[in-house]
Amino acid sequence: VERLIARTPEVLRERYDIDARVLYEAVEVDLARQRVRVCPVGEKGDALGRECVWEAFDQLLFATGALPVYPDVPGVSARGIYALSTLQSGIEVRSAVDGEMPRRAVIVGGGYIGLEMAEALIARGLDVSLVEKMPQVMNTLDPDMGSLVSSALREFGVHLYLEESPVAFAVDGGRVRAVITDRRTLPADLVVLGIGVRPNTALAAEAGVPLGVRGAIRVDRQLRTPVDGVWAAGDCAESWHLVSRRPAHVALGTVANKHGRVAGINIATRSQGSGGEEALFPGVVGTAITKVGALEIARTGLQEAEIKALGLDYASAQIESRTRAGYYPGASRITVKVYAEKGSGRLLGGQIVGGEGAAKRIDVLATALHAGLTVGEIVDLDLSYAPPYSSVWDPVAIAARQVVRLV
Amino acid sequence: VERLIARTPEVLRERYDIDARVLYEAVEVDLARQRVRVCPVGEKGDALGRECVWEAFDQLLFATGALPVYPDVPGVSARGIYALSTLQSGIEVRSAVDGEMPRRAVIVGGGYIGLEMAEALIARGLDVSLVEKMPQVMNTLDPDMGSLVSSALREFGVHLYLEESPVAFAVDGGRVRAVITDRRTLPADLVVLGIGVRPNTALAAEAGVPLGVRGAIRVDRQLRTPVDGVWAAGDCAESWHLVSRRPAHVALGTVANKHGRVAGINIATRSQGSGGEEALFPGVVGTAITKVGALEIARTGLQEAEIKALGLDYASAQIESRTRAGYYPGASRITVKVYAEKGSGRLLGGQIVGGEGAAKRIDVLATALHAGLTVGEIVDLDLSYAPPYSSVWDPVAIAARQVVRLV
Repeated sequence: VERLIARTPEVLRERYDIDARVLYEAVEVDLARQRVRVCPVGEKGDALGRECVWEAFDQLLFATGALPVYPDVPGVSARGIYALSTLQSGIEVRSAVDGEMPRRAVIVGGGYIGLEMAEALIARGLDVSLVEKMPQVMNTLDPDMGSLVSSALREFGVHLYLEESPVAFAVDGGRVRAVITDRRTLPADLVVLGIGVRPNTALAAEAGVPLGVRGAIRVDRQLRTPVDGVWAAGDCAESWHLVSRRPAHVALGTVANKHGRVAGINIATRSQGSGGEEALFPGVVGTAITKVGALEIARTGLQEAEIKALGLDYASAQIESRTRAGYYPGASRITVKVYAEKGSGRLLGGQIVGGEGAAKRIDVLATALHAGLTVGEIVDLDLSYAPPYSSVWDPVAIAARQVVRLV
Repeated sequence: VERLIARTPEVLRERYDIDARVLYEAVEVDLARQRVRVCPVGEKGDALGRECVWEAFDQLLFATGALPVYPDVPGVSARGIYALSTLQSGIEVRSAVDGEMPRRAVIVGGGYIGLEMAEALIARGLDVSLVEKMPQVMNTLDPDMGSLVSSALREFGVHLYLEESPVAFAVDGGRVRAVITDRRTLPADLVVLGIGVRPNTALAAEAGVPLGVRGAIRVDRQLRTPVDGVWAAGDCAESWHLVSRRPAHVALGTVANKHGRVAGINIATRSQGSGGEEALFPGVVGTAITKVGALEIARTGLQEAEIKALGLDYASAQIESRTRAGYYPGASRITVKVYAEKGSGRLLGGQIVGGEGAAKRIDVLATALHAGLTVGEIVDLDLSYAPPYSSVWDPVAIAARQVVRLV
């Protein structure tokens, strides 16, 4: 747990002169009088009823993050049901696995959290079921790519129930006993919810700060909200998407980290009145990566559903190749899918599923998206080759070449 | 051996209708009369003295590859000394290891061939020494990065002799017995030469085809030589370098493969008089990758010596990070060095040395070089992050950020 804490409140205080107060909740923002009402809370965020105080501000940053989505069904607040979000929630679920010796776990949702928890709980020897309402897990991938992940999950030992949703949790003595879906009852000693997050913006919205896409706080590329002197960064804020050319809500650590840096520079510049340079958030292209067992999974840019929603005319190709030269020991399968805009040939997105060394190749496509490269230009890239690392034509270039013929 | 043959002469003949004649050597090109004199040779390229023939051509492609460089010292033609270049030379050195049970091997040259052979021979249980004339191995890297490779070689069990060159080979009964350097005598049952290659261009030069950089056949971006109807591709030909903006000689499979594709398209278009589209070689950025043991090694763009030779004003930074999140099991060290041009901030090159997952990250920098990105733009890239793959800021972005401050 200690190694997961990047900086303690003590370090922030002593080394950076930042008055970092943990176990305090901001419960109300008064924009007109430039102050925030702050109340002490317990370890689990529970209000303590002790005295609250009003803190004054010149510049205000919302960095309230995201909250896990809970299914709106009976029994959801029973003990034994966990939604992974904060470090504290991780401590609690691990303590439950260590202390209560659960045998059967049910995971609701086949996204990043669901997959990572499936892997962790299988490793701890539990019998793991996963319920996903869509026809495939990982719906940030196209369904055909997601199906490769579904297969890997099954091979890994996960009981997979696709196109099912929980309609209730069976509860006994305040404790969850089963997940009841629209098709069956799955006994459970432990339930993990991973059906997504939503920006934690109630405080901002109540204060009158405008919200944007998917309820995230609306910001410009300097991370300014429409309210003067008020900023937002991280999972609670919008991001500019460089491929769709629209605001998006992307709740990922990489984005939050870049947000924080940009907002921090700009707030410091403003506070000091130093006339220093202003920082601009560069935008996201939608890159994400994960793994389940030995299977690596990555995506960037737009997936087919997003491209269709934008009304773009597009072509795509999906290829299968090997992570190493075919004759080199340890080569495994890699599947690459690439999308490009018809006419311009501009790369729109890519997805990769495969063995060791597959997923990080997504960074070539992410870089290409930033640079606005066409699929023809991707074919031409001087990518690295040696038999332990790649075929002579990198699988990413092979996929791009297939698309060149179609745009 | 069979798996290393991409296409046999039979496949070329039957599936592609290409009259592929192996064991024939082109010994003379008569440009004026558009014909090539061809003679049969034995398995080892030895002339058989059988009847030679003149073959006519309309279009002629030189794809004569590169030849290993032999040191000009006494004893170099003794038995037991191998230069790795063709598949046949690989068969011979393996057969020597299998059949003659050598105990002590000496490798001359610490480049790609030298490192790969050191790893292979250590794996076969030989006692391996490596002699390199420069202060570090891998001189396609800067010396400080090369020193990381030197250390890894020593840890791997290779006896490393830097700043030494062979002055003679001790020979007994026609067979090599030792490598005599300017500082010591290294007994050897087997010697591998890996001191570089030169373009195999004697045939072209004798015919009057102009040579260019480092004796490679001069070509334009269509792979045309200055002689009408004569083309060159692969290790015997020049390549356009996108970063130095000059012709270069890069003897690598990726480049040869792209050359072949471009020349093939253009020759076919010309032959058919179809007025089809002409292909252009996209250029190289100098990407290369290799490994020794668990250490991964990669480079792209220009190294310091090349930047200095071009007279560019530059800045660089070298950082150390981890291949995975610090707390994630299996994280290992990664060192990244990045060069940029002062003023413009344009990326000029990068080098990476590190553990599993380190080297393929060079492709981000290779893509950035193609796109002409600045180091500031590299910091802004939406690169993939998850704890098994990277720190939140990818080591490549961390290195770029250090350089931003200096340009």
